Amino acid sequence: MKIDGMHYRSVTASGQDSITIIDQRWLPFELRFVQLHTLSDVAIAIKDMWTRGAPLIGAVGAYGLCFALRDDTSTTNLEQAYTALLATRPTAINLKWALDAVKNSALPLHGGARISAAFQCAARICDEDVAINEAIGQHGLQLFRQHLDAKPTGSTLNILTHCNAGWLATVDWGTALAPIYMAHDAGLPVHVYVDETRPRNQGASLTAWELQQHGVPFTLIADNTGGHLMQHGLVDLCIVGTDRVTAQGDVCNKIGTYLKALAAKDNNIPFYVALPSPTIDWTVMDGLREIPIEQRSAREITHILGTHTDGTTMEVCITLPQVNTVNYAFDVTPARLVTALITERGIVSPDALREL
Amino acid sequence: MKIDGMHYRSVTASGQDSITIIDQRWLPFELRFVQLHTLSDVAIAIKDMWTRGAPLIGAVGAYGLCFALRDDTSTTNLEQAYTALLATRPTAINLKWALDAVKNSALPLHGGARISAAFQCAARICDEDVAINEAIGQHGLQLFRQHLDAKPTGSTLNILTHCNAGWLATVDWGTALAPIYMAHDAGLPVHVYVDETRPRNQGASLTAWELQQHGVPFTLIADNTGGHLMQHGLVDLCIVGTDRVTAQGDVCNKIGTYLKALAAKDNNIPFYVALPSPTIDWTVMDGLREIPIEQRSAREITHILGTHTDGTTMEVCITLPQVNTVNYAFDVTPARLVTALITERGIVSPDALREL
Repeated sequence: MKIDGMHYRSVTASGQDSITIIDQRWLPFELRFVQLHTLSDVAIAIKDMWTRGAPLIGAVGAYGLCFALRDDTSTTNLEQAYTALLATRPTAINLKWALDAVKNSALPLHGGARISAAFQCAARICDEDVAINEAIGQHGLQLFRQHLDAKPTGSTLNILTHCNAGWLATVDWGTALAPIYMAHDAGLPVHVYVDETRPRNQGASLTAWELQQHGVPFTLIADNTGGHLMQHGLVDLCIVGTDRVTAQGDVCNKIGTYLKALAAKDNNIPFYVALPSPTIDWTVMDGLREIPIEQRSAREITHILGTHTDGTTMEVCITLPQVNTVNYAFDVTPARLVTALITERGIVSPDALREL
Repeated sequence: MKIDGMHYRSVTASGQDSITIIDQRWLPFELRFVQLHTLSDVAIAIKDMWTRGAPLIGAVGAYGLCFALRDDTSTTNLEQAYTALLATRPTAINLKWALDAVKNSALPLHGGARISAAFQCAARICDEDVAINEAIGQHGLQLFRQHLDAKPTGSTLNILTHCNAGWLATVDWGTALAPIYMAHDAGLPVHVYVDETRPRNQGASLTAWELQQHGVPFTLIADNTGGHLMQHGLVDLCIVGTDRVTAQGDVCNKIGTYLKALAAKDNNIPFYVALPSPTIDWTVMDGLREIPIEQRSAREITHILGTHTDGTTMEVCITLPQVNTVNYAFDVTPARLVTALITERGIVSPDALREL
């Protein structure tokens, strides 16, 4: 990941003292790095979306458990911290996966050994996430080359993405955006249609900012626009991330993903989902019935952050006051609408997931 | 239509001097009535969306042609004014229909007779629009009753709508909202899911405000949410307006309509389109290839109006500065996704449109 040409990771640890993350609530207007020192800091940062993205909340959550152990190595405290962190975001499975890993690394040990094992585990989760995303990027890059080869010479590959599955959602590279960065770096002519992604505007605020920092050409669109673009041959493929994939290949991702998958199917456009394998929840088959869908605050719909002409960043209310709303954060795209899953282990169709 | 319990029309004429409309750009924050006196006033009001909605811009555009004739009754002036008004919004067919009606009423006459014929024609267009929408409402009401009868006793009928096809889009009643108002007034338990409708937020700003003024229960949702609601049985039917229907039943409407129609089809939920018959363009068959789709300013995506905590209404920028965007205002829903068209003459399936 690059910010003003410098390389960063989305989470970095300072020994056992703290981690540094970007408070993503202020992007694209302000780039604010913040330090988290305690379990409570981490729980708030995840719950209130200072940090977000399924892989990244796994990594950050892992450090939350480390901080809890550092302050109290008892099993009771470990279990309480685990439960508190798990409750911060119910939908993404990576958080549970990462918390399980840290817990299991610490449980067999005692006292200070628990602390160092937990921190080592969290660091390993971060390093593995980077390696996983790099592998996803390489697999995706090959796929993009094939799609580009199928177009007339000199064509641009037009890619539509929803929400943010870039490096701001992971420790580095991103999932859906990893192959886009690699394709751009390899000199392939790629252009990205970025869905705004209401109500939190992760596309407009995060994906657009990431792509701009990296120099990848993109066009920001309202979420309503993708269907029209696909009907008119302006999109070659869709690629998104995911918060949980079921054993039968159903894909839970940011609300609105299902609508884009329907449009892709209706127009014979491939719909790809990029994911680290820890995003697969082998305990769940039917995504529509079994995955808990988080509901978030009405304020995400009624209020928005922007910059005034005087340059100040401020929040305004964009609706009637006290309007009734419902704000589901995710939806489930049935496996039948997914062309293939791009994982670090390779590319598979949803019905071949078990063969990975 | 009701505002604070008072009855209004969306456009009213003061003799040949002026018409009064609502400057809809300020809703739901401020209710501003404005007077338009000249062709130029009318052209700006349509182009810059002080007034909008296919039937309403037909009615307002008709008065624009009247004002032009009042100031210069020559045929040259009539033709120039006709061309100027037609260019204000390319997609909705009602504007052309209304301008043709006024032009044809005036052309055979001379001098002052042209003026009075034109104003009479414009007034007739307004009165007919009200009668048409009332008839649409009655037909839709019967349909709603059937849907409600098919649900367990005591159920609420949950309706999803996109954009604004209420009285703010017509002279009175609305098209898609007419049956909703009539159902509510008849004591039927109806509840409306209102799509925000980015980028101009006509759902959040206009439909929500209209429904609140009338006392109809509603829930405002992000455009991304409708698919999830339909997957979970929370929507009984969809109903939208339209800017142009082709002879084969393709429906051009606000961008994003196509995505909702796909979701309705995928979940076996009826998708209805309410329209006055002048919205049918018998000269066009294939909506996807033949209907011109208006592209609007990037500013609709990058900026938004809201209220600050100090109560002032202000515009803020919600994206990166100078971001690349594309802003198609409409899309086309193929006839195969439309359950039925509700017109003033009755309810027909798209393939039976010619039998109307």
